[in-house]
Parts: sequence; structure tokens; C-alpha cells
Amino acid sequence: MRILVLNGPNLNLLGQRAVDIYGHLSLKDLEARLDEYAVKLNIHVTCQQFSGEGQLIDSLHDANGWAQGIVLNAGAYSHYSYALRDAVEAISVPVIEVHLSNISAREPFRHQSVLTPVCAGCIHGLGALGYELALNALEALFRTQTSP
Amino acid sequence: MRILVLNGPNLNLLGQRAVDIYGHLSLKDLEARLDEYAVKLNIHVTCQQFSGEGQLIDSLHDANGWAQGIVLNAGAYSHYSYALRDAVEAISVPVIEVHLSNISAREPFRHQSVLTPVCAGCIHGLGALGYELALNALEALFRTQTSP
Amino acid sequence: MRILVLNGPNLNLLGQRAVDIYGHLSLKDLEARLDEYAVKLNIHVTCQQFSGEGQLIDSLHDANGWAQGIVLNAGAYSHYSYALRDAVEAISVPVIEVHLSNISAREPFRHQSVLTPVCAGCIHGLGALGYELALNALEALFRTQTSP
Amino acid sequence: MRILVLNGPNLNLLGQRAVDIYGHLSLKDLEARLDEYAVKLNIHVTCQQFSGEGQLIDSLHDANGWAQGIVLNAGAYSHYSYALRDAVEAISVPVIEVHLSNISAREPFRHQSVLTPVCAGCIHGLGALGYELALNALEALFRTQTSP
Amino acid sequence: MRILVLNGPNLNLLGQRAVDIYGHLSLKDLEARLDEYAVKLNIHVTCQQFSGEGQLIDSLHDANGWAQGIVLNAGAYSHYSYALRDAVEAISVPVIEVHLSNISAREPFRHQSVLTPVCAGCIHGLGALGYELALNALEALFRTQTSP
Amino acid sequence: MRILVLNGPNLNLLGQRAVDIYGHLSLKDLEARLDEYAVKLNIHVTCQQFSGEGQLIDSLHDANGWAQGIVLNAGAYSHYSYALRDAVEAISVPVIEVHLSNISAREPFRHQSVLTPVCAGCIHGLGALGYELALNALEALFRTQTSP
Amino acid sequence: MRILVLNGPNLNLLGQRAVDIYGHLSLKDLEARLDEYAVKLNIHVTCQQFSGEGQLIDSLHDANGWAQGIVLNAGAYSHYSYALRDAVEAISVPVIEVHLSNISAREPFRHQSVLTPVCAGCIHGLGALGYELALNALEALFRTQTSP
Amino acid sequence: MRILVLNGPNLNLLGQRAVDIYGHLSLKDLEARLDEYAVKLNIHVTCQQFSGEGQLIDSLHDANGWAQGIVLNAGAYSHYSYALRDAVEAISVPVIEVHLSNISAREPFRHQSVLTPVCAGCIHGLGALGYELALNALEALFRTQTSP
Amino acid sequence: MRILVLNGPNLNLLGQRAVDIYGHLSLKDLEARLDEYAVKLNIHVTCQQFSGEGQLIDSLHDANGWAQGIVLNAGAYSHYSYALRDAVEAISVPVIEVHLSNISAREPFRHQSVLTPVCAGCIHGLGALGYELALNALEALFRTQTSP
Amino acid sequence: MRILVLNGPNLNLLGQRAVDIYGHLSLKDLEARLDEYAVKLNIHVTCQQFSGEGQLIDSLHDANGWAQGIVLNAGAYSHYSYALRDAVEAISVPVIEVHLSNISAREPFRHQSVLTPVCAGCIHGLGALGYELALNALEALFRTQTSP
Amino acid sequence: MRILVLNGPNLNLLGQRAVDIYGHLSLKDLEARLDEYAVKLNIHVTCQQFSGEGQLIDSLHDANGWAQGIVLNAGAYSHYSYALRDAVEAISVPVIEVHLSNISAREPFRHQSVLTPVCAGCIHGLGALGYELALNALEALFRTQTSP
Amino acid sequence: MRILVLNGPNLNLLGQRAVDIYGHLSLKDLEARLDEYAVKLNIHVTCQQFSGEGQLIDSLHDANGWAQGIVLNAGAYSHYSYALRDAVEAISVPVIEVHLSNISAREPFRHQSVLTPVCAGCIHGLGALGYELALNALEALFRTQTSP
Repeated sequence: MRILVLNGPNLNLLGQRAVDIYGHLSLKDLEARLDEYAVKLNIHVTCQQFSGEGQLIDSLHDANGWAQGIVLNAGAYSHYSYALRDAVEAISVPVIEVHLSNISAREPFRHQSVLTPVCAGCIHGLGALGYELALNALEALFRTQTSP
Repeated sequence: MRILVLNGPNLNLLGQRAVDIYGHLSLKDLEARLDEYAVKLNIHVTCQQFSGEGQLIDSLHDANGWAQGIVLNAGAYSHYSYALRDAVEAISVPVIEVHLSNISAREPFRHQSVLTPVCAGCIHGLGALGYELALNALEALFRTQTSP
Repeated sequence: MRILVLNGPNLNLLGQRAVDIYGHLSLKDLEARLDEYAVKLNIHVTCQQFSGEGQLIDSLHDANGWAQGIVLNAGAYSHYSYALRDAVEAISVPVIEVHLSNISAREPFRHQSVLTPVCAGCIHGLGALGYELALNALEALFRTQTSP
Repeated sequence: MRILVLNGPNLNLLGQRAVDIYGHLSLKDLEARLDEYAVKLNIHVTCQQFSGEGQLIDSLHDANGWAQGIVLNAGAYSHYSYALRDAVEAISVPVIEVHLSNISAREPFRHQSVLTPVCAGCIHGLGALGYELALNALEALFRTQTSP
Repeated sequence: MRILVLNGPNLNLLGQRAVDIYGHLSLKDLEARLDEYAVKLNIHVTCQQFSGEGQLIDSLHDANGWAQGIVLNAGAYSHYSYALRDAVEAISVPVIEVHLSNISAREPFRHQSVLTPVCAGCIHGLGALGYELALNALEALFRTQTSP
Repeated sequence: MRILVLNGPNLNLLGQRAVDIYGHLSLKDLEARLDEYAVKLNIHVTCQQFSGEGQLIDSLHDANGWAQGIVLNAGAYSHYSYALRDAVEAISVPVIEVHLSNISAREPFRHQSVLTPVCAGCIHGLGALGYELALNALEALFRTQTSP
Repeated sequence: MRILVLNGPNLNLLGQRAVDIYGHLSLKDLEARLDEYAVKLNIHVTCQQFSGEGQLIDSLHDANGWAQGIVLNAGAYSHYSYALRDAVEAISVPVIEVHLSNISAREPFRHQSVLTPVCAGCIHGLGALGYELALNALEALFRTQTSP
Repeated sequence: MRILVLNGPNLNLLGQRAVDIYGHLSLKDLEARLDEYAVKLNIHVTCQQFSGEGQLIDSLHDANGWAQGIVLNAGAYSHYSYALRDAVEAISVPVIEVHLSNISAREPFRHQSVLTPVCAGCIHGLGALGYELALNALEALFRTQTSP
Repeated sequence: MRILVLNGPNLNLLGQRAVDIYGHLSLKDLEARLDEYAVKLNIHVTCQQFSGEGQLIDSLHDANGWAQGIVLNAGAYSHYSYALRDAVEAISVPVIEVHLSNISAREPFRHQSVLTPVCAGCIHGLGALGYELALNALEALFRTQTSP
Repeated sequence: MRILVLNGPNLNLLGQRAVDIYGHLSLKDLEARLDEYAVKLNIHVTCQQFSGEGQLIDSLHDANGWAQGIVLNAGAYSHYSYALRDAVEAISVPVIEVHLSNISAREPFRHQSVLTPVCAGCIHGLGALGYELALNALEALFRTQTSP
Repeated sequence: MRILVLNGPNLNLLGQRAVDIYGHLSLKDLEARLDEYAVKLNIHVTCQQFSGEGQLIDSLHDANGWAQGIVLNAGAYSHYSYALRDAVEAISVPVIEVHLSNISAREPFRHQSVLTPVCAGCIHGLGALGYELALNALEALFRTQTSP
Repeated sequence: MRILVLNGPNLNLLGQRAVDIYGHLSLKDLEARLDEYAVKLNIHVTCQQFSGEGQLIDSLHDANGWAQGIVLNAGAYSHYSYALRDAVEAISVPVIEVHLSNISAREPFRHQSVLTPVCAGCIHGLGALGYELALNALEALFRTQTSP
């Protein structure tokens, strides 16, 4: 099974920024940890990170051709990018939305994600662990669908 | 490790009601499945379900004395019960909020949960699988806190 | 035909409270009058009244097993109890919502009932007469459905 | 006893339009059914239907001179015609508002009727049956007022 | 100088309706009083009253050909009839809006008149006197414009 | 192919009113121009204009019997007439909404048309040209539906 | 009869400021014109102008002792000074609110006056003429009340 | 004089929860302190605490039979329980609302209490002292009413 | 202990205005009653009343030098004067907000006080008694802070 | 005459995505069809599609140098990209906004386009036909402006 | 060049109040620092501070006679004083609004200044430095206007 | 000292677009002027301009490594780009927001900048001068921080 882990703007600064909210793990560390975790689930993970809305959309379109599942943390775009939402809705691969922090406990503009209604599910507030749970979920969904 | 799985109003009708949204699994089936899953994680699960707001509050207060984690699906109370929110905030046990369906993709009154800001994390849209992931998450949180 | 007439919080004070709005009839009087009226329609009426949201939910769940129709006046819960709404939606018995007073002519918080969208119909402003009309309506619905 | 049954815009298309919501009964059929039903209650029914707001207002003013009760389904005008509301409020004949469909379960603009606060009562969601119940209600109100 | 005094829906019931708000003067009385008052100002007054929005619009269009001023009390249409507003804006005759009652002291839907922004001025709360003041104002405006 | 071109309130003043917004073309000129244009498309155009909401509704109902397409400019009614919206929705003839001006660039109350959601399409901001494009569109829709 | 004409902040700049809205008349000119006009109505006018909210309140309290009517143009305070509103409501002298410009046709914050609901009437959009009409109105009110 | 001191959900955790807001006093301590204080005022205090909305309603109904005053801290129910509000309004005993913390200085959902409009008075922000002041107030009210 | 009792606009009319809401006590009477009450608590009370926002601000600044507590009834300024709020927040003396009437039961603009969030506590609905309770509260706060 | 046809995010998936809304035509097909159609109008069409907001802005800036008209379907950016709006407003080439679907009949976030107020006109709900009508419109505008 | 530096309510407490937000500089210190800074720019600075809205308005009116520029920090009045806004708009001297703190990063009621739309420019968040920059700006504006 | 001057979308059209708002200065001219001005302050300025949100984010991240201050005019992104806001918040270099025009005096969507709360300060309405003042401010901030 192949999964795209797609991170949005400012997640490249993970570990350097707002460490009280996001923790000390860098993006590189997080990706390495996921790689390791995925192997146990027989998943091959591809990790990408982009600052641009258009790049994220193109990445989702592209994954439509090769991935069986997507873990998406679109950062602040989650709260207003209807273009990204359309991209998620347009593709046939299941997408699970992840946020490191509990977005409902932060500034009002973060309470609503415009992506959630078109995702298969949503996990937030659980830090890096959230990405791992999303891998578990996609693996389970995939197993259900492909098992006779 | 001991965990309370607490379900709110109308979840006793699981499997009989809105099966296109909630699936055919009954509450009994769900609880049995969680029991089985928990054993593998070395967790002892206690399952409760109540229709009353006050009963759910009392159950949370009580769990404060014996549980190391709580999985909470408060049903429709999630959207307006500030009394339940206060109960979650008042206790020192970490609570993970679970919803079977993707609440952001349903009626507007379900888009916001007043409980989320005081929970450790939130998982929704993944059906019964969500409860299992919540157990995983609580187990991982517990392991982190109690390991030296 | 068996029908549940279910009254919510503060309706036990009928006849003692706000008599300019609700009239001098006590709940006991109202129930007796309905009993008498029902007999003529060949309906057996069971009357219940509860102050608790959970109790009302349980009563609706229970009626799902034995009633062919429900007349529901949920009092002030009508304006915010999404848990009660879920209960009405979850059961397969038709529910007719009744209010003694014209709720649209009173305080703004009473203008909207969150139960109405999931009820078969709604009658308000007609006092005790409204309950009788609801019995008529349920009887007619039942006759239509069960007649060949 | 004489009663005006007044229908507003687009109700002339009953039975041809949105039959999943309004059913297959034509306006002519509905009026015939009411005529028949009214006879049993010793009521003489006059049925009118207009597309124009001004015509509906004039009809209400006129009925003030000869009717003892009015059944009013003002169609979409219910949701914004404060002029019609003033007409209802201005006359001394009791008016019962009827809607065929459950307006609270449809588009948001139909959730609120500006007429309701000045009507004696409101019945909706019960199809043609609602008009019959309204006749019953007006008959009962009249009997109460005119009996010693 | 020729002036149109145009009254909208339900003003034909003046003196019969809500006498605590509108007083005991009938529309006929009001018009007679204005006639008498106008003579002193060398104004010829034409009085019209319509229930229909379209009739009011047509009357305004027509007055564009013969009147030098218009006194308009559009009743409840004032609060939502953008079609009437367009008619007032479309004609070149100055229009003064009059309301018998203090619309700001009544129900919220009466607080805003959508006609006011396109009228030359607005007088309300002063009963029948308001119409007389409007005649004075139009006469003064006319004198200013036509005097060298 | 037969098409109704239906204009609403104040459009009879075209060319006399707000010429910076609507231009110098009179309604008669516009209708003549459309007539000429329609001939080339093998369309027979019938033009009507009414000030009254009820008249517009009746015209739409009537066209249901003879027209294969409708071009509708309901003027200011577009922004609040849910009765007109119901009429458009009730008939089976495709309706294209046209506005001469760019309604989104004018007063806030003009930004939203309550008719648009039930029309086949909408063209605005292009002046008289918009009516011609609407004829083209209806002709194309008709050709598609009736061609094998 | 004695009347207070009370002007609020920035009206001392009349004739120097926004002359396209307020005209070229100075406050002194306006007051002189009113003096002259009042004489004909057998009214003695006292004119005051203050920039401070407290001063305006004190002036109203004081007038309660000697005036039979008040013409009030509170300038921008009209739109938020609930303290001034309380002062108008607290005194027993009738107050007529006047605005030189058509406040409904200007910035949104000027559309609502918090004073209007507690005034006897309101005149706006008619420039200096509005003050004269207000004197007429107060004189007529006074004559009605004091005539047998 | 007999007074009911009625506490709502989560107040049983007083002294254990959010001590920076609510202080270290336990509910037992608070009740003891009130007992002692009441004696000096010749008041007999009965203290109750419930988690359930229905239980609080029943307690208020019951007190209607024996208490001359009620001190009510309904906890988070204060912000949405219209059922509780109806109960307060339905009984004839004066109720004083108390909150330990300054609810206006906390989360927005706590700024409004739906109970306040039907209570005799409200005291908040003064901690345990607020309960004592409420006893004083009820005693004074009682003395005024019962003294000749 | 020295306490400032500061009253805002229109409170000088106490006893003359809206006696159904505020009672027949004059401000002078109220102040005399407080003087007497304060003596028993060993408090020296200074009473001031101003109509101007600036005067109230200056009075608060001044009291910062000599008072150990402030009882503030800012009248209608309570609902919009952020300048007064800043003054309360800027000084180090505890302020207790008092309102004679139950502001939550009156016009919507009175439901919110912008001062409350920066006051030590708030008492309203209890008439003159509220001022006395505020003195008690300040005395208790002072005793707690100054006792070892 | 040269025209830019500019499509925004996710329009590259046309024919693969939401075919019930957008139809089976691919973007390539659409562009070919427009090419063919344009030739008949003596227009040379250049088609571009971008996922990025910045790329769309750059494309508009660039077209300012060579195009005489622009057909713009900015996809979901239409609903929030004020940067794109500024770009449309900044250039001197007329832009016609096109949407394939009837955006007013879909999710609320699609009801408003922030681009419309600065476009020359808007056509939506007419599928691929809408692009053709836009070419017609631009050609007519161009002919008017360049003809003597 | 002569400039008025006008400070509003509570700025007299600078250095004593909320020092984490406003710093330790007193108003006297700030004014001295500005004096010194102004000399270098060949500006003569007059500093005033008032608590009253009316006093600030009068000061602006007065400055209209002698100042070539105004630096205005109206404190909390900035957020609601439309009377002050009218004063700024009424005078012909350019006004630059200054705030010591970043008002957008504080309580919601401080996010909007009703004065900004009528000021020449706005500087906030830069402490005392903001006043100096405002002097620079006014000097530059003045130089531009008076230079040939 | 090294400073990044970063301009967002459409600022490359400066001098060509909306010259009544932005003036005739081109971006190149502006940058040259700033270069010259910076030299006097011993600042080395690097100027960049991007249309893309992602490019602006990357530029801010990059500047974190070499700049001691940033002047940011993000154009229309200021009003909705929470991704850009996160970038500003994530870096440790102080950012001063500049707008050429007075954004509070333009369309409502420009009144609020989502960037302001995380910037050190904000200057708007002062044209090109605003950039110069921002350089002054950053220089002063830097001097304060680095001086002993």
C-alpha cells in the first residue's frame, strides 16, 4: 500500500516555531518516525511539504494516480482554501485530515476547517501520534475495501 | 491501564438507527470489539452509556478516581452541553472525543463540538475504528507520561 | 391503536403557572380530557411527563416498541435539545409536536423548535385542543398506512 | 358558521408541482374535500386563491364582514409579507395558518413565517389533513365563544 | 401646486384597527382634513390608497407626469419592498415618507424603511399631523426651486 | 420555438431612469431589438412587463402552457420574492435570469437574487446584450433536448 | 409656549463643514431664522449647543423645569448615546428629533438613532426646514393637550 | 425563614477544580459556612446539589412548597437551560442567582445567563461571599414583604 | 475604611423617573441611607454623581489616591463606555458594579455591561439594597486583604 | 481580436470529477470547442489553466499587454481571492466571469464571488455554453468600442 | 509649523497603568521627548490631554484655527465616538491617528477604530516612537503641500 | 543592519493602477527611493515582490536567516491569508506592516488585516512615506535592542 503524507505551509519550521504548541520534533524527524512506523504496517510512505496552495493542489492531483491513501495537514490553508477542498473532493483517494494541535482550543479562525467535510475522517490534538493513527486508519480502510 | 469508554444519548440504538450514517454494528457489538482490541494493548476497558446529561457528568467525576484515560462520544450533547464540558475540564484524566460520523459533513448544528476545546484530542468520521485509535492514543499518552 | 402523549419539563405545573398563557386546566385534567377524547377515536392513550432530558429520550425509545403514534410537547427542551431531536429521528413511530401557546408570539428563544424538522407535523397556539387535533392526525395517518 | 379558506400564490398548481412534497391532490380536489368535511361540522366554507399580495389583503379585509373564521395558507408570502401580517392583525376574525409541508424541514427561508405571531394557531406538515384540523379548531373556538 | 398623497396596504382600515397606535381618525377623515389644510397652502391634493405593491408602483409612475410632490405612507411595504424603492428612485418628483406611528418604537421589522434612503425626507410618529407637515415641506421645497 | 421575455417592475421606465446604469434604450426599443434578433435564431418572442408580483407569477404559470423557454428580469423582486421563486420552480419550462446591470457591483441588497438557485442559468452586467445571449442559450438548450 | 432647541456636537461648525450635505447656513443663521419663525407661532425659543454628552443631558434635565417642548438634534451622539436616550425618556417634556440630512442615505452607522424610540416624533432630511416643522408639531401637540 | 441553596453541575468538585478561579473551599465547607452565617440572620438553610437538569427543576418545584427564598447557582446550565428558566419563572418564591466567579470576564459562552431575566437579582464575582450577600438580600426582601 | 459611591447620568432623577422600575427613593435619600448603613460597618462613604463620561473618569482617577473601594453605578454608560472601562481597569482600587434594576430583564442594549469584566464583582436587580450589599462586600474584601 | 480564456484550480480535472455537476467534457475538449467557435467570430483564443493564485494573477497581468478580452473561470478562488480581484480590477482589459455550474444552487460558500463586482459581466449555470456566450459578449463589446 | 498632540482619556495615567502594554514612560515624559524631537524638525508642538469627549471635540475645533497638523490618540473613544469622528472630518487640518499598543492584538472591541477612515493615516503598535513618526509624517505632508 | 522590503500581489503594477489611490510612483521608483533613504540610516535594504502566497511565505522564512527587520505590504493577502500570518508569527525577525492607502476608508473587506495582530506595528494611509517611517521604526527598535 502506498500513502502520501502531505504537509502545508510553515510545517517546514516544525520544531523551531511555537514549540509549546507543536513540540520540538522537526519535520525531518517526524517524517523519519512515520517511515519507520509505516514499515510495520506494510505501507510505503511518500512525504511532501509545500508552501503554495497551487503546489498542494497539484500534489493531490498527482497522488490520485499512484496513492491508495493520503494524510493531509494543510496548515492554515485548512481554514480558508476552498480550492484545496475542491481538490480533495475531486480525487478518488481517501484523505484523512490531521492537525498536530487541538485547533478548537486555539484562535477562532482555526476552529473551522473547510477541508473536513470532504475528508474521510479527521484527527487532531494528538501531535505526531495523529499521523501514525491516520496511517492505521487508512490501512484499515484499504484492508476492508480490498478484502473479499 | 484502565479506560472508560463513555457513550451518550441514542448510541444505545446503534445499528438500528440511520444505518447509512452509523453502520449496522450494535452498541453491544462495538463494546465487544473494543474489549478484544483493548486486551492486545494491555488495557482494561469499562463501557457505559447514558441518556442523561447528569448521568454522564457523574460518570466522568467517578472515573476521575479510577481511570487513566477516557474515550467520550457524548452524542448530540457534544453540541451544546457546557455542563459536560465543565466536567471534562474539571477532571484530571485525559479525554479523547470520538464521533462515528464526520460531524462536519452533516447538519450545521453538528459542526461545532463545545467539548473539543477541553479534550486532549478528537477523532471523527472513522466509525468504530475511531474508538480503537482513541485507545491507541490514550495508551501512547500514558506510556509517555509514566515512562521515565 | 396505541398512542404515547409525552409532556416535558414544567408541564406538571399546568394550571398553576402563567395562567394567562396556558390556561387553568391542570395536567391531570388535560390527560383525563384526552383519555375521553381518544376513546371516541378508538385510541388507547398513555400519558407521561418528565423533567429530565434523559427520561424523555428513554420514554421515546421505549415507545418505539409499543406505540403507533406519539404526541410530544417537550416544553423548553424543544428549543435546544438536539439529543431529544436525535431520539425523535431515531425511532420509527410518527411524532406530532404540540405546543399549548403560540411559541412564535413569545420570547425570541421560543420561536424556533429544533424538534420540528424531524417531526411528522406541528400544531401550536390552540391550547388543549391542539393535543386532540394531534390525536386526530395520528389516527388519520395510521388509517391511511394500514388500510389497503 | 362561515369560514374563508384562503390560499396564496402557486397553490393553484397543487398536484402538478413538487408532488414529492405536496402530493397529487389538485386545489380543486382539496377544496371539494374540505366542502364535504365542513358540512359534517355545520360549517359553510368559501374557498379563494390569489397570486397577488394585494388581492390576499383585500380578501382578508372583506372576510372581516362575513366570516367567523379563516384558514390561511399564504404560500411563500408567509415568509416575508409584513403587509399580509398587518392585514391579519387588523381584522377581528380568528385566523389559523396552515402549511401542507413541514416548513421547518425545508430551505432556511421557509423556517420562519412572519404571519404566525398574529395568527390564533398554526398547523403544518400534515398535508390536506391540516386544513381539516383547522376547520375543527375554528369550530371549537367558535363554539366556546358563543356558548353561554 | 399638485400633490399626490399615496397610502399603502391596510391604511383603508384606519380608525378601525389598532386605535391605541393609529387613533380613531378614518382614512376618509384624514383625507378630508388634508384637503382642507392643503387649500390654505394653495395645494391641490389627490389622495389614493392601494393594497397592491404593483398598484402603488404604477401610481408613482403616473404621478411623475402630473404631480410636483408626493406624500407616501407605504405601510408595511416600507420595510421590504425594494420594487417600490426603485419606483421612488426612478421618478423625478420629490417624495416625503410619512408614518403615523413612531416606527422605531415598535417591532424590530418596522425599525428600518428601505424607502427612506431615496426619499427627500421622512417624518414619523406625529400621527395625521405628519401628513400636514409633509405638505408644508413639499410646498417649501417647490417654492425654493421655482422662485428665481 | 416560442420564448417569453418577461420584465418586472420599473423596467417600463428603461431609458428614462438611471441612464448611467441602464443606458438610453427604452423598453420598446429593447423588445424590438430582441424581436429582430430572435428571428435569426428561428425563435418567436413574446414580451411582457408587469409591476405586480402576482401578475408576474400568473404570466409564468401561463407560459408553462405554450413557451419552450423564458427570459426573466424580475427587477427588484429578484431580491426578495420567494413567491416568484416558487413560480419559477413550479413550472417545467427552463428560465434564464437576466439583469442589465452588474448587480454585484451595486447596493448590498442587490447582491443576492433569490431566483437564481431555481433558474437554469444567470447572465448579468451585459446590458441589452444579456437578453440576446439568453435567447442563444435557450435555443441551444432546446436544440440539445429535442435533437435525437 | 417655551421651547428648547438643543443642538449637539459639531453643529457649531454648520455652514463651514460638509456644505454639500448640510448647506451654507451657519448655526447662528439657523437660530435667528427659528426665532423669527417661532414668533409667528407665539413660541419663545431658547437655543443651546454643546459638544459634551453630559452637558446635553444636563440641559435636558434643566428644560424639564421650564420648557413645554424640545427640538433635539444630538448629532452623532444620536447613534450611540444611551445615556442621552435615558435623559429624553426620564423627562416629561415631549421631544422631537431632527436631523438636517437624510441619515438613512449616509454611512451605515448613521442609519439607526438610539434616541428615536423615546422621542415623540422624528423629522429628517429636510434641512433647516425640519426645525421649523418640529416647532409646528410641538405647537400643535401643546394646543391639543391644553385645549379643553 | 427557610431558604434553599441550590447548586448545579460540577459544583460538587469545588475546591478540587480550577482553584485559581473558584478557590480552595470545598462544597461541604461552603455549605457549613452558610449554615453558620444563616443562623445569625434567623434563616434556616437547606443545601442541595445536583448534576441533572431535571433534578434541579424538580428541586425548584418542590421548594415552591416550603421555602421563602432560593439562592441558585446553576453552574453551566445557566447559559443554555431554558427548561430551568421556565422552572424559576413558574414558581412564586424569589430566586437570587449567584456565581462564584465573574462570568463576564471568562469565555464568551459564560457572559450571558438565560436565568437572570427571571430572577429577582444577580450577584457574581464575589466568591463564597456572594452566597452570604444573597441570604442577606432574601432576608431583607422577606422582611419588607411580611412587615406591615 | 473609605469608599466612593459613584453614580452616573440620570441617577440624579431617581425617584422622579420610571418609578415602576427604580422606585420612589430620591438620590439624596439613597445617599443618606448608605451613610447610615456605612457607619455600622465602620466605613466612611463619599457620594458623587456626574452626567459626563469625562467627569466619571476623573472621579475614578482621583479616588485611586484616597479610597479603599468603589461602588459604581455608571447608568447607561455601562453599556458602551470603553473609556470608563479603561479607567476602572487602570486604577488599583477594587470596584463593585451595582444596578438598581435587573438589566438582563430590560431592553437588549442593557443586557451587556462593558464594565463588568474589569470589576471585582457585580450586583443587580436588588434596588437600593444592592448598594448596601456592595459596601458589605468591599468591607469583607478589605478585611481579608489587610488582616494578617 | 485576441482573447485569453483563463481557467483556475481543479478545472484540469474537468470530465473526471463531479460529472453530475460539470458534465463529461474534458478541459482539452472544452478548449478545442472554444477554438472552433472563436474562429467563426474572428477571434483568436489562447487557453491557460493554473492551480496557483499567483500564476493566475501573473497571467492576467501579462494579458493586459496583448488581449482585448478575458474569459475567467477562477474556480474556488472566486469565493475568497481578493488578490485575484485586485488583479482583475488593476488591468484595463474587460473580463467576463464564467462558471459552468449554477453556483447559487450549491454550497453557501459558492453563492458569492468576490470577483463579480470588478468584472464586466457574469454568466453561470450554462455549462460549456457559458464560455461561448462570453466570447460573443466580448466580441460585441469590442465591436461597439472600436466602431466609430 | 505648529502641531497639536492630543491625547484622550486615561493617557494621563501613562506609566502607572498596564506597564506591560504601555511601558513605564509617563505622559509628561512622553510630551517632553516629543518637544525635543519636534525641535529638530522645526515643529512647535502643543500637547493637550482630556478625559471628556466634548473637550476633545472642542480642542480639535480650536486647532482648526492655528495648527497645521494633529497627532491624535483618542484612547478608548477611538472605538465608538462617532462625535469625535465627525469633528476630525469637519476640520481641514490633517490628523494622524496614533496608538501606543497594537490594538489589533488586544480585545476585540479595540480592533476597529471609527476614527481611522477620516484620518490621513494611522500608526500603531510602536509605542512612543509612533508619535515621533507621526510628526515626521505631518512635516513631510506639510512640506509637500507648501513647496512649489 | 539588513532589512527585507517585501511586497505582495499587484504591487508590481504600482503607478499604472488606481492612481487616484496609489499615486504615480512605480514599484521601481519606490524601491529606489527607499534604497536612498535607507543609506542615511545605515540600513541595507533588499526589495522583493511576489504574486504567490507560497513565494511570500518562503521569502519570510528565508529572511529569518539574514534580516534584522522586515517591511511587509502583502497587498490583498493581508485580508485573508492565515498562512502568511503563521509565517510572520513563526519567524523571530520583527515585521512592520505597511499599506499605501488608508485601508479603513475603502471597501469593507480591506478594513481588517489578519496579519496585524502578529506584526510589531502597522502604518497605513501615508503612501510611500509609510515605508520610510517603517525603516525608521525598525532601525530604532534594533538600536534599542542592541545597545547596552
